[in-house]
Amino acid sequence: MNTTAIIVAAGSSQRMGFDKLAAPLAGVPVLRRSLDAFLTSGCIAEVIVVCPPERWKLLENATSGGFAKPVRRVDGGANRQDSVANGLAALAPGAELVAVHDGARPLVSPEDITRCVAAAASFRAASLARRVTETLKRADADDCCTEAVAREDLWLMETPQVFEVGLLREAYAKVRAERLEVTDEVSAMQAIGIRVKFIEASQPNPKITRPSDLVLATAILTIQ
Amino acid sequence: MNTTAIIVAAGSSQRMGFDKLAAPLAGVPVLRRSLDAFLTSGCIAEVIVVCPPERWKLLENATSGGFAKPVRRVDGGANRQDSVANGLAALAPGAELVAVHDGARPLVSPEDITRCVAAAASFRAASLARRVTETLKRADADDCCTEAVAREDLWLMETPQVFEVGLLREAYAKVRAERLEVTDEVSAMQAIGIRVKFIEASQPNPKITRPSDLVLATAILTIQ
Repeated sequence: MNTTAIIVAAGSSQRMGFDKLAAPLAGVPVLRRSLDAFLTSGCIAEVIVVCPPERWKLLENATSGGFAKPVRRVDGGANRQDSVANGLAALAPGAELVAVHDGARPLVSPEDITRCVAAAASFRAASLARRVTETLKRADADDCCTEAVAREDLWLMETPQVFEVGLLREAYAKVRAERLEVTDEVSAMQAIGIRVKFIEASQPNPKITRPSDLVLATAILTIQ
Repeated sequence: MNTTAIIVAAGSSQRMGFDKLAAPLAGVPVLRRSLDAFLTSGCIAEVIVVCPPERWKLLENATSGGFAKPVRRVDGGANRQDSVANGLAALAPGAELVAVHDGARPLVSPEDITRCVAAAASFRAASLARRVTETLKRADADDCCTEAVAREDLWLMETPQVFEVGLLREAYAKVRAERLEVTDEVSAMQAIGIRVKFIEASQPNPKITRPSDLVLATAILTIQ
């Protein structure tokens, strides 16, 4: 199926204090690594990068002979979900599946992208995810433990999250109409009652949020 | 306060297929690295390693001139919580705080140990932990999303977990009396209604569970 990737890269990196998407990971900017994974994956027809013009330069500067596949830029919105909506509005008419990916997950493997796209082709909606294996607790405002949270059947969402284009449009229309706030597209799918299939990541796929995540990602790259 | 560390290293490493605690991490066995972190930390008076005699040789063989602090071995029990109870039973009379640590977390930093011990001195009970920063969902038997789980205030438990000795004894007495199964000491504290303060880890502190964890830990050591 004709699949477009939307890479969301419009955030301001407030938690890091510097532009995490521009940070070099073993010499290559984080955002460029995310893009490369989708350009390498055989199942992606086009990539839309949602980012400001100055961030787009990270990608252009790294490319001498152009990209291996069509890549377009669209502006971001006020928050993550508006940015995804902007990408969705820019899809080519022939797009059947859409894979939404956080630009700050530079280590996603082309194989895991392909597995998620295949699952979405079967189940209409799929997300890369990871089972929780550690003990999980809830804390109060003082960071003191208040209750245990059963970890059985709990998954941490990753990206890409892949959907039939019509489904994601319907979900975002509902999100907009009801003024919901969603942290990912699985949450948007829940708003319209669609079951999302979880695909366990075969490779570490951390989100670069804090400086220590950059250290960890560099380590992972070193051993891969 | 007089603080003893209990390093739990009695498991059989079933998930790994080989002895993960004996595995070399940049040339030094995993368990030895865990021990060294506590020997290096200025706030620990004594260390009790809960492990079988053959595993103890990993530590002795690595030491020519003896340990920098008192280190004793006690036998493990049938499961993790019995092993912790064995360590607890072996505490010296003067011990005021006890820091329980998984031997399979070799990258814990002496600084994070000190931070947890200081927190336990103030709050009576503290655990090294990591905030959940990803979106969390619950799945059904088909690995399909069923519900969202609010991630605000959710933490993944790490070790060390540090407590007033009397509190941990009380908690384990309750665990034993009610035949509870606990995956960590924070869970035991909850059984007696004690608030545990979470201290966010400043360094990666992965538990060596799968072979890929070992490779990852090696890489983290390389860049630290």
